[in-house]
Amino acid sequence: MIILVDDEKKALMLEQVYIAEMGKYVGENVTLKGWVYNRRSSGNIRFLMLRDGTGIAQGVISKADVSEQTFELADRIPQESSAVVKGKIREDKRAPGGYEILVSELEPIQIAENYPITKKEHGTGFLMSHRHLWLRSKKQLAIMRIRNVIISACRKFFDSLGFLLVDAPILTPSAVEGTTTLFETDYFGETAYLSQSGQLYMEAAAMAFGKVYCFGPTFRAEKSKTRRHITEFWQIEPEIAFAELDDIMELAEKFVAYITEQVLVNRAEELKILERDTGPLENVIPPFPRISYDEAVDILNKEGSSFKWGDDFGSPEETLLSEKFNKPLLVHHYPAKCKPFYMKRDPQNPQLALAIDMLAPEGYGEIIGGSQREDDLETIKKRIEEHNLPQDAYEWYLDLRKYGSVPHSGFGLGLERTITWICKLPHIREAIPFPRLLEKCYP
Amino acid sequence: MIILVDDEKKALMLEQVYIAEMGKYVGENVTLKGWVYNRRSSGNIRFLMLRDGTGIAQGVISKADVSEQTFELADRIPQESSAVVKGKIREDKRAPGGYEILVSELEPIQIAENYPITKKEHGTGFLMSHRHLWLRSKKQLAIMRIRNVIISACRKFFDSLGFLLVDAPILTPSAVEGTTTLFETDYFGETAYLSQSGQLYMEAAAMAFGKVYCFGPTFRAEKSKTRRHITEFWQIEPEIAFAELDDIMELAEKFVAYITEQVLVNRAEELKILERDTGPLENVIPPFPRISYDEAVDILNKEGSSFKWGDDFGSPEETLLSEKFNKPLLVHHYPAKCKPFYMKRDPQNPQLALAIDMLAPEGYGEIIGGSQREDDLETIKKRIEEHNLPQDAYEWYLDLRKYGSVPHSGFGLGLERTITWICKLPHIREAIPFPRLLEKCYP
Repeated sequence: MIILVDDEKKALMLEQVYIAEMGKYVGENVTLKGWVYNRRSSGNIRFLMLRDGTGIAQGVISKADVSEQTFELADRIPQESSAVVKGKIREDKRAPGGYEILVSELEPIQIAENYPITKKEHGTGFLMSHRHLWLRSKKQLAIMRIRNVIISACRKFFDSLGFLLVDAPILTPSAVEGTTTLFETDYFGETAYLSQSGQLYMEAAAMAFGKVYCFGPTFRAEKSKTRRHITEFWQIEPEIAFAELDDIMELAEKFVAYITEQVLVNRAEELKILERDTGPLENVIPPFPRISYDEAVDILNKEGSSFKWGDDFGSPEETLLSEKFNKPLLVHHYPAKCKPFYMKRDPQNPQLALAIDMLAPEGYGEIIGGSQREDDLETIKKRIEEHNLPQDAYEWYLDLRKYGSVPHSGFGLGLERTITWICKLPHIREAIPFPRLLEKCYP
Repeated sequence: MIILVDDEKKALMLEQVYIAEMGKYVGENVTLKGWVYNRRSSGNIRFLMLRDGTGIAQGVISKADVSEQTFELADRIPQESSAVVKGKIREDKRAPGGYEILVSELEPIQIAENYPITKKEHGTGFLMSHRHLWLRSKKQLAIMRIRNVIISACRKFFDSLGFLLVDAPILTPSAVEGTTTLFETDYFGETAYLSQSGQLYMEAAAMAFGKVYCFGPTFRAEKSKTRRHITEFWQIEPEIAFAELDDIMELAEKFVAYITEQVLVNRAEELKILERDTGPLENVIPPFPRISYDEAVDILNKEGSSFKWGDDFGSPEETLLSEKFNKPLLVHHYPAKCKPFYMKRDPQNPQLALAIDMLAPEGYGEIIGGSQREDDLETIKKRIEEHNLPQDAYEWYLDLRKYGSVPHSGFGLGLERTITWICKLPHIREAIPFPRLLEKCYP
């Protein structure tokens, strides 16, 4: 190896110490750079809290140690002003992070205007239109750091199992999940759609590479205004040649357990900031309960729901079911008529599709949807017809059934729904840096 | 750790051995599953080459060992038919991969129709419209496996340096790189654009988290039909608070060296399949040559080009420049008028922007573009006006200059251009699984 990346300063050459690394510099004079998070005063001492994205440092400004100007600045420098702070680092158990800096110099870079996000409660609409600033808050940073670990865990899981990452295209000529919720664009005179799922492409890739996955943004122009819907969301979609329904149930279970474990192991502090009770997460260990759609309907009816066999579960049903179990729940064998064209029917009962959903516990509902795929050419042709889909756009997809068709299965995990559940957020909009909601495409 | 993913079979439970792992099962009876890649006969022996995405296995079918039916099948089973092959594995240095399987059973799953991709030369148009099948070829698999390593290397590089991955939105209200090359879509009655770059969002994120990057698909509706253009391509875009032009030159250099090294170390076999001369790649070690735009113009003019100061480099200029050096080349300080509004001007000479490009060697041209960003509120307001951009859409971006503005810099690396160069491909379209080209959005 010619290059080993193990020292931040070596590769970045920045002349600053990051707050998360203060502990390495006890007794040394260093330069911190960041933004004023908070300040308070006590007699001849001013405390300045500085954040830099890696942590929050307590700066101690003693009237005796600094110029009159600096001391006066420390009294009035507004929140979110940017500044360079120089001084000596010392241990102090009472300081956040366990260290503080005895400030000798405080040099403002830019004095901030009145920061719009204050300590008082803000309405969601206000926070959402200030998302670019809201991200600076402690809680949002914690969520983003958990998101980061979940994304890494997804990739690590499939990479270590020998899956090949195959990026699916976003611009597509065909619709996977029905045509009513598509964003469309003019593609040099033709109509192209924003992908709702990479699945069909993953089927092609699985026939080439065996085990594959994609992980990218997908789009649904859904007019739903619920706490579970955003129009742009990331999905991770594995697809496996020669895998059948049981194989992907097994895989989905291990996958979700692995993700949860990685968050517990690597993001304990962030879960604490979010006041997330970790008990339910520690319980996410295979095997997960598995029930058929029929059994799920029985449970719903016993609970007093008037839900009818043959309908698809909505949010109320998912919530009710997922609250009945203390682990993620696998529901399998759905009525074929409420599922997409590409799902294989159960040979024992052609009214049923070889489909699975995984519902997150604590009322969070669906995080995974998957199925064994129809692999017979004539059957899939018939389904495309029945669903009134344009045969031309699917010619290439039919080829997969002409040239070495094999049993194959896959699923998609919704990244933001998973984050929402793991962080126990009240709404999915906080699970993605810049959420896109119905009538909300700003900033 | 409750779950450790170190055994493919453990997590997948598939009753098959993958070809890449045959060496672990010498002397054992196993089941392989895959597609017929090729076959030939020699007296009473038939050789069946089976591919499964992890490798190609030689199956040896001896007339004495199998039923008459099986032997006859081995004589006529068409290319790309899917099949289950059972038999004993033995070492054989002449076999691809060093092992072969003595077939006792050959069970077809689906007999393929006449496979359209044959050994004869096919035109590009034909291969492109059969991309879903073309991916099955050895060379395309090698490219995709190199792509995979490059993607992992990008993430590993920034993750290990403490950068936070912050996904930028695809649907955006504003245009980063000018408005002429935008794909647009109706967003519940308003117009939204497909992102050309995540940069502006990364600037917001850098003010929140210090060091960030995004890595996702971006879009340019460019009408260029060159070997360097696709309309949908992936970009990795780091952005760093408090970093200046020199810092990102340093970082870009180490980043590209790291990627190249990772490919050399982990994908030697694939580079061989592509007949890629690795000499030029082994040379990609920092420091890279650095020249100013002015110097670049001198070189061009000395080489007989009539290129004029103030114009932007096109493909011919980039090719000429990058062929003059045997390492990636950093060009810095471009004329401000040919660069976007957000770049900071050189305080020494306001005609120049604090911009860098990195040109890949061997004539491949630009793979990285970056700059220090304008951080002064009044200046950036003026630029937005000068560029006739809609001020409303940039309100949030201006906020970043009101609340703790700091010097900051970043760059974007074009993933597919990097792959094209590292694999030494003749055209960028082979660097992505499902390329989107001018007038080509299929499959």
